Amino acid sequence: MNKIMECVPNFSEGRDKEKIEKIVDCFRGKDNVKLLDYSNDEDHNRLVVTVVGEPKPLRDAVLEAIGKAVQLIDLNKHSGQHPRMGAVDVVPFIPIKNTTTEEAVALSKEVAAQVAERYGVPVFLYEKSATAPHRENLAAIRKGEFEGMAEKIKQPEWKPDFGPAERHPTAGTVAIGARMPLVAYNVNLNTADLSIADAIAKKVRFLGGGLRFCKAMGVELKDRGIVQVSMNLTDFTRTAVYRAHEMVRMEAQRYGVSVVGAEVIGLVPMKALIDCAEYYLGIENFSMDQVLESRIME
Amino acid sequence: MNKIMECVPNFSEGRDKEKIEKIVDCFRGKDNVKLLDYSNDEDHNRLVVTVVGEPKPLRDAVLEAIGKAVQLIDLNKHSGQHPRMGAVDVVPFIPIKNTTTEEAVALSKEVAAQVAERYGVPVFLYEKSATAPHRENLAAIRKGEFEGMAEKIKQPEWKPDFGPAERHPTAGTVAIGARMPLVAYNVNLNTADLSIADAIAKKVRFLGGGLRFCKAMGVELKDRGIVQVSMNLTDFTRTAVYRAHEMVRMEAQRYGVSVVGAEVIGLVPMKALIDCAEYYLGIENFSMDQVLESRIME
Repeated sequence: MNKIMECVPNFSEGRDKEKIEKIVDCFRGKDNVKLLDYSNDEDHNRLVVTVVGEPKPLRDAVLEAIGKAVQLIDLNKHSGQHPRMGAVDVVPFIPIKNTTTEEAVALSKEVAAQVAERYGVPVFLYEKSATAPHRENLAAIRKGEFEGMAEKIKQPEWKPDFGPAERHPTAGTVAIGARMPLVAYNVNLNTADLSIADAIAKKVRFLGGGLRFCKAMGVELKDRGIVQVSMNLTDFTRTAVYRAHEMVRMEAQRYGVSVVGAEVIGLVPMKALIDCAEYYLGIENFSMDQVLESRIME
Repeated sequence: MNKIMECVPNFSEGRDKEKIEKIVDCFRGKDNVKLLDYSNDEDHNRLVVTVVGEPKPLRDAVLEAIGKAVQLIDLNKHSGQHPRMGAVDVVPFIPIKNTTTEEAVALSKEVAAQVAERYGVPVFLYEKSATAPHRENLAAIRKGEFEGMAEKIKQPEWKPDFGPAERHPTAGTVAIGARMPLVAYNVNLNTADLSIADAIAKKVRFLGGGLRFCKAMGVELKDRGIVQVSMNLTDFTRTAVYRAHEMVRMEAQRYGVSVVGAEVIGLVPMKALIDCAEYYLGIENFSMDQVLESRIME
């Protein structure tokens, strides 16, 4: 695969194994599409699929899976801990290799138009594909969930970007858009005082005047008797992992607290970590083309 | 490709484009074999090919290319700056993904046996495949080159591991073996004094009592008015890049000199750099399976 786009669609079915497999099957046995992972949560009653591929075959597989989910899932009968507004709740496209944010935005809009046309499901474009600032944040779009969307969608400021201004009777609505890969990164501190982790989190995160693409909160690791600053870096190409790390270290100093470790949760693009090696070693003129694995993937 | 082995065969033909293409063609259009790079040097009169693949198809393609080179290249008519002892001079196998050193050694021996049987070329196993300590080092095996090998190969201590104890009349002899990926890594110092870089190089390298898998020398960067410690790390899984880097920094201190940058030359496996990010950030319990690109390559 020369160009690689990732898609992480979330479906509102986490319990019925047969339905889950029917949806996931849409990503199997397709040329230039690779299913990386899928996991269902019974409490959340939700299925999260991670798939990569060349943009066009990926688009086709995603459309097929959305069609399958619209057919199989009835939100009127859905209950679960996770907020949701549709049979397919959210579909982010993420540029991974030889693809740009612009291409991910374009792909998301193509898929959005087709979802409305083929399945009659109203679509909100979100994140980098959003058509207005108040539609960037998924939580803001989803507020009210499937149940509340019946009325919400009729308000002018919540007119969908594609499809009818009317909730699909069983499949609800869906958010489709482009975003950067998310890096879940936690920094451990040698204190049991959660208020210190919280205070640091508030300073490093965007909301508190900190780093633009950083969300953060304090978390207790009770079994270890320590706390951590738990972060989501929503664009590591602009808010680098090492910068967030060093900012936590810097803020920790005033409390007489030290960084005693860190963790990466889930998948991480290699560039996010190689950027850190480049920074700490002071490597000059490095190109990702020098990474053996980038060549192999070409 | 699930298992990936790399091979970097060196052929003694760097001038005749037609012959070069005939050899390189053996690596094209083969399932599960990927030609990453090839470069010929006219002064050295040598061709270096970088290819990766699943072990079995890679083995077959390498054997085909060796056969082609034996057929096309006559060492009696070869001259060039680079030392050489055969039409195919050296064939290293390097484990890259889901493959071990042991598998690379086994593959090198399979290829060695076939080269002797099919083409009648005597083979020396070298590096990790060597059958005696004095045969580990390629330079020691190659000493005397094609011309000297006529007599050298008749000595008991230089009896080849496979094939006749007689130099092939036109193709000479070949070294085949397994080695780890090489990382070429240089650390820049803010001084123009080459003797300082030399002194540091002597301390960090294996030969001087330093790091086991480190070769090093001082190099002048005349246009920048600085010097560097130029290193070859021959097994980054055991002599990590960050360890060599920090040891140079440590030794530089006594001269009042600072590290002002570093460079990676050529290809580098992603793990060599990700290991550095793990070290400097203090990441706990990280697995290479968390790297998105490892999953894509599966």
